[in-house]
Amino acid sequence: MALEGKLLIGQQSVSGTRANIQATNPATGETLDPAYVGGDRSHVEQAAALAWDAFDTYRETSLEARASFLETIASEIEAIGDELIERAVAESGLPRARIEGERGRTCGQLRLFASVVRAGEWLDVRIDPALPDRQPLPRADLRQRHIALGPVAVFGASNFPLAFSVAGGDTASALAAGCPVIVKGHSAHPGTSELVGRAIQKAVKACNLPEGVFSLLFGAGNEIGQALVTDARIQAVGFTGSRSGGMALVEAAQARPQPIPVYAEMSSINPVFLLPEALKANAQGLGEAFVGSLNMGAGQFCTNPGLVVAVKGSDLEAFTQAAQKAVEQSGAQTMLTPGIHRAYEQGVTALGGEAGVREVARGQTGENGYQCQTGLFATSAEAFLSSKVMQEEVFGASSLIIECQDMAEVKKVAEQLEGQLTATLHMNDADIDAAKALIPTLERKAGRILANGWPTGVEVCHAMVHGGPYPSTSDSRSTSVGSAAIKRFLRPVCYQSLPEALLPEALKESNPLKVSRLVDGKRNA
Amino acid sequence: MALEGKLLIGQQSVSGTRANIQATNPATGETLDPAYVGGDRSHVEQAAALAWDAFDTYRETSLEARASFLETIASEIEAIGDELIERAVAESGLPRARIEGERGRTCGQLRLFASVVRAGEWLDVRIDPALPDRQPLPRADLRQRHIALGPVAVFGASNFPLAFSVAGGDTASALAAGCPVIVKGHSAHPGTSELVGRAIQKAVKACNLPEGVFSLLFGAGNEIGQALVTDARIQAVGFTGSRSGGMALVEAAQARPQPIPVYAEMSSINPVFLLPEALKANAQGLGEAFVGSLNMGAGQFCTNPGLVVAVKGSDLEAFTQAAQKAVEQSGAQTMLTPGIHRAYEQGVTALGGEAGVREVARGQTGENGYQCQTGLFATSAEAFLSSKVMQEEVFGASSLIIECQDMAEVKKVAEQLEGQLTATLHMNDADIDAAKALIPTLERKAGRILANGWPTGVEVCHAMVHGGPYPSTSDSRSTSVGSAAIKRFLRPVCYQSLPEALLPEALKESNPLKVSRLVDGKRNA
Repeated sequence: MALEGKLLIGQQSVSGTRANIQATNPATGETLDPAYVGGDRSHVEQAAALAWDAFDTYRETSLEARASFLETIASEIEAIGDELIERAVAESGLPRARIEGERGRTCGQLRLFASVVRAGEWLDVRIDPALPDRQPLPRADLRQRHIALGPVAVFGASNFPLAFSVAGGDTASALAAGCPVIVKGHSAHPGTSELVGRAIQKAVKACNLPEGVFSLLFGAGNEIGQALVTDARIQAVGFTGSRSGGMALVEAAQARPQPIPVYAEMSSINPVFLLPEALKANAQGLGEAFVGSLNMGAGQFCTNPGLVVAVKGSDLEAFTQAAQKAVEQSGAQTMLTPGIHRAYEQGVTALGGEAGVREVARGQTGENGYQCQTGLFATSAEAFLSSKVMQEEVFGASSLIIECQDMAEVKKVAEQLEGQLTATLHMNDADIDAAKALIPTLERKAGRILANGWPTGVEVCHAMVHGGPYPSTSDSRSTSVGSAAIKRFLRPVCYQSLPEALLPEALKESNPLKVSRLVDGKRNA
Repeated sequence: MALEGKLLIGQQSVSGTRANIQATNPATGETLDPAYVGGDRSHVEQAAALAWDAFDTYRETSLEARASFLETIASEIEAIGDELIERAVAESGLPRARIEGERGRTCGQLRLFASVVRAGEWLDVRIDPALPDRQPLPRADLRQRHIALGPVAVFGASNFPLAFSVAGGDTASALAAGCPVIVKGHSAHPGTSELVGRAIQKAVKACNLPEGVFSLLFGAGNEIGQALVTDARIQAVGFTGSRSGGMALVEAAQARPQPIPVYAEMSSINPVFLLPEALKANAQGLGEAFVGSLNMGAGQFCTNPGLVVAVKGSDLEAFTQAAQKAVEQSGAQTMLTPGIHRAYEQGVTALGGEAGVREVARGQTGENGYQCQTGLFATSAEAFLSSKVMQEEVFGASSLIIECQDMAEVKKVAEQLEGQLTATLHMNDADIDAAKALIPTLERKAGRILANGWPTGVEVCHAMVHGGPYPSTSDSRSTSVGSAAIKRFLRPVCYQSLPEALLPEALKESNPLKVSRLVDGKRNA
């Protein structure tokens, strides 16, 4: 497919008017054609008008039609074939196997949401039948279902050019909920975005849906983003990126005449707690496995383990030595963009220069300018507790070991942490009591608590929570990965005494959709 | 019980330091003793510290213990007996039967939440078992439950001194979720608040819960409110009141270093659509019933029918005439406070003075200064569509009839409405198509759609939605009445590969709580 470098507005390809966006291959420094001419407010206006026109129709498509649309998107993405893989590798510098895996994850995610749509749990159907004889007053028939919020603006992330981008988790869950989607493609991978955007365009057409169900815009500055978030027709926002970027969207959304929810997944340093007995039993193995997780994807994961917390002593020394060796042997890895590489270098320098921080090891230096050199640092709990810089996310392969006096100080460190996506415990049976003492704190701090694993690698399933207290996200009540992500784009509506002919399918007495229902508060499958 | 006029902080009664708050009997103008000396920031500090200390313990109480606590609160409120009824009547000017009914509703609501806690649906348990043999990568065991957000600040409303106040829906649902609660009592009914606050205090003690589970503060200005919303330990806010009051809390909550959710139920004019055939069949009966709903509680309901929309002609004239007669016969009713009465008078004057609005009828004038004189007005759809004032809520018995040229104009009016708590259709079988054409708009505008009833009278049940798009609330994804209100104070946490000994009861393999679970996405009771 010849890339056109245009905006996709409904079924049209439209030329932009603003500054060019052009991807760079971070592995070679080469500029990748074509140039994408940025859009302006008028393009947001067109896309939002189409999305609004599509909304009432799209949100009432049958469960089967909507599920089939999501599956068609997955098939269309697969049908692009190798061109998609090659372009995504070129635009991200990520290894081919990783991009192939990510394509699988992206299509699997779309198919998961198809099954979620069909199962209908997201409707959260509740029925309280009429009680005409109740004293002192009769009760009317009351039925609740959830409906889509409205058109959603999605901001693609840099670090997953497929799974958190144009057809990523935000788009899949919003479409599953019945919301039209307007994506602002990430400027680091416009070609990948166009290819996936065209796949969705084709699926919209093949499924005979109104064209406004999907549009894809590009823009170099924040004109498009601000216009999207402040457009009266946009009813929710999905975002994955920096804390400053996310909070700018939150502020713009709150300042609207009608404020709207923003689901921004922002920053997390994902503390890993090495409990004493597990550390004693396997200090070296843990040190090596830790660096494996740290280096994964050049550390460019929201769940990268940026903090290790343990009681100091010979076991932690053995861990640190093993980690040091592994870091020293770590090859340089190409980062996603020059900007990300620059921010990584600055972050590592700031962390290494902080009072009380010592450098444990650096990885190998790279051959080109955008390669990261893994960084491992250590400090005392005392120093950590009085530092702000040490809690800031360094996006990339960088981590800090906190040496504590005892488990009480470990808990103190945990209590002082900001909100996190994940908190990890390495433990064995003899650590159960120590773990029990920490878990209440970790539950308040993180969206996911894991034992004896590493936080990188986020399963797309029903129980996943990829979310957490601020600043890991802007809304701790939600997840951006897994089937519960659909809830972000829904709101409840109650129907009182409506005649059967006017009730939506989900609420009809005979339960034609065969969905699970709460009848008088009791689960009734 | 002798009222003390003090703040209730945990199990203590504490004297305030700021200006006095003293209730007025709006029916007599009499000042009611005792004076309540307002608290300051230090009282918020004490209450928040206690709430925070109580949080980890309270949120992990057993389902039975928490349910039993809610039931004990209900019994303690009932045990106050007539003193509560008399004080609430004196402080609100509401009739005794209404206050008795409201006490029943308040205690019923607490008992409903006890049953909700026991049923455990709110935990939204999801289990995705480990798949150790999955290719290319195994899946870890993943389990999700919901936990309480943290201490919640509740702002009592003026218009329901029991059901939306100290032990009202916000408090009941937050306590059910496992959140300690700090209430800022409404200054219009401090004695009623103290009585109910003491009942909760007793229940906390009787159930051996940490004292910080509940505190009750008073304050004349916004010092207490701002201190509560900006305290780092407060994690959510429940509010019922004016749009300006609600949005001030939203702004304060968003400006915190860690923003928190605010559930503000604010303003709604609750449009009633009279569809042509229903109007033709029963114009007079509808007109009379409408005024009954309009006058209920002196119109001081969030769901008061402030707008009637219909196609003009002889049927609407018959409706208007019947309503006019009923309004003219409407006795004056005492309003809750002098301030509310003043705002009502101003609102009615502004509405009556708006270009294109004619007065249809006023009710009888009252004998004292705080009685409202029901107001009914009419205008054309054309005038309504170009007016901002006509969409503003007049809190009290005031309503506006919109005369439309045809059903297309009815729909135009519906499309231009702001967000609402309710939208009502009066219709019969011959109106089905007209109703079908309106419902998509009404679903986007309101949290509850009802047919052939009146919006006043909000059932406390599982399917209720007392919520809706902005400005009816600050968060359209929620309800403040009914069992789904508990969801406002919860967030999901995922547990990955945790040993059985560390899993919370709700997630243990044997399902000891016998809660409904989603296993691999399938409902499994």
